[in-house]
Amino acid sequence: LSDGFADRLAALVEERRSQVCLGLDPAPAPAAEVVSRCERLIEATAGVCVATKLQLACFERLGASGWEALEAVVAAARAHGLLVIADGKRGDVPVTAAVYAEALFGPGAGTDDVVKPLGADAATLNPLLGRDAVDPLIAAAAASGAGVFLLVRTSNPGAADLFDLETADGPLFEQIARLVDGESERLAGERGLSGVGAVVGATEPRHLARLRELMPRSIFLIPGVGAQGGSAAELGPALGAHPASVLVPVSRSIADAADPAQAAESLRAELWRSSQ
Amino acid sequence: LSDGFADRLAALVEERRSQVCLGLDPAPAPAAEVVSRCERLIEATAGVCVATKLQLACFERLGASGWEALEAVVAAARAHGLLVIADGKRGDVPVTAAVYAEALFGPGAGTDDVVKPLGADAATLNPLLGRDAVDPLIAAAAASGAGVFLLVRTSNPGAADLFDLETADGPLFEQIARLVDGESERLAGERGLSGVGAVVGATEPRHLARLRELMPRSIFLIPGVGAQGGSAAELGPALGAHPASVLVPVSRSIADAADPAQAAESLRAELWRSSQ
Repeated sequence: LSDGFADRLAALVEERRSQVCLGLDPAPAPAAEVVSRCERLIEATAGVCVATKLQLACFERLGASGWEALEAVVAAARAHGLLVIADGKRGDVPVTAAVYAEALFGPGAGTDDVVKPLGADAATLNPLLGRDAVDPLIAAAAASGAGVFLLVRTSNPGAADLFDLETADGPLFEQIARLVDGESERLAGERGLSGVGAVVGATEPRHLARLRELMPRSIFLIPGVGAQGGSAAELGPALGAHPASVLVPVSRSIADAADPAQAAESLRAELWRSSQ
Repeated sequence: LSDGFADRLAALVEERRSQVCLGLDPAPAPAAEVVSRCERLIEATAGVCVATKLQLACFERLGASGWEALEAVVAAARAHGLLVIADGKRGDVPVTAAVYAEALFGPGAGTDDVVKPLGADAATLNPLLGRDAVDPLIAAAAASGAGVFLLVRTSNPGAADLFDLETADGPLFEQIARLVDGESERLAGERGLSGVGAVVGATEPRHLARLRELMPRSIFLIPGVGAQGGSAAELGPALGAHPASVLVPVSRSIADAADPAQAAESLRAELWRSSQ
């Protein structure tokens, strides 16, 4: 891969004028049906989306056939020109983080060919175990042109329990933001963006401006915007130097729409206006 | 299941006088070889172990066939009388946490029979997203007689980055310990133990006494003891009211031993002496 994740995403965002990421959280069904449902959504919306976010849990609960379905959906997304974000929120001690890196991004040099990586373009990570635990995943992402999104502040009510705890340098989520920014150079692209990104819930807009200040180059993956309509007021503070600084995953408001293609296009247009 | 995880574990610990948990982190190999390697270790050591901890990443990197191998190893462990701990350190927003619960512990009422749960007796969880994000997993564990182990303080050097950050009520890991203790009643057994357990690294013995004070009933899963020999000085402060309050996962020092059965028995005897 000649370009890293940040530059590949930026090129797609410019080309399609879109920051929409198709979220795929398929309901339980036989694996073949899960694949065909996901493929239909990908085919309908790929032209106005730039990426797809696959919720690994929804595939894992189907057992081995779910993993086969996951691989098929990755292939379909790639065939339709979408970047693939594996949403598994993985995080473990360094030796195991390196194994997750193999599973997500591809084997390191000398690894046996029995390793079957998902070949994701990016993955969501949980940073609780600290810098050395995300290091092997960032290193593998750098080697394979991929990106990572670290959980910085989620939008569930319980997120306040730990993310918002005050420390000597502000709430915990600001400390995580500093950790993200400290790694950002490692996946920096040529358009001012870094593939060391952040998952930031959209329910607390007051956080967004502060987080952008702390992570000027990181791509923000912001779930929750779509469901609430994606107003400029929500998105504005999160925007960085490039429209690809914000990526909005949307699942149900596309999948459950009478016309998913139209729903995705409406969202694309609304977000694009908001980001200009 | 008549008994919950805490009581089932306690009964096994009393019966076998063992707190050893066989850690299985198989190196990459064709799936059939991974299964037979794991089976050999299970057969050799099951009599002196009480549980096995399966590192999900090591199976995931093999793709769909790795998930089949995982299911086969779960079945082998169960057939040899070991409790199965799925070590995936999962954690997500509540709606997705409920999906992970289905994948790990079994489907809820009314779920389609396409769901193929691993059927784990316990699982490791990442608590960063807060109480509402672990709630669906604890609820599913309660319904299926399973247990959970929340990451409270890991032993990698980078763990200091976030776990040790000072808050108004002590370091972050103490806040997580309070969260664990606050949930402990939900999986409380009849021997003074709770199946809302904690993953606590063994490299900082000074933490163990404090964590036991904060979580008097939780089962501690303590990686790292085996590799350093499992001295009484390390284990002592972690012990609660019952010897099953401490569970020691050991991987390489059993798997790489010339005689894994003997290595497991030596560790069992040493740990048991330390806990009396």
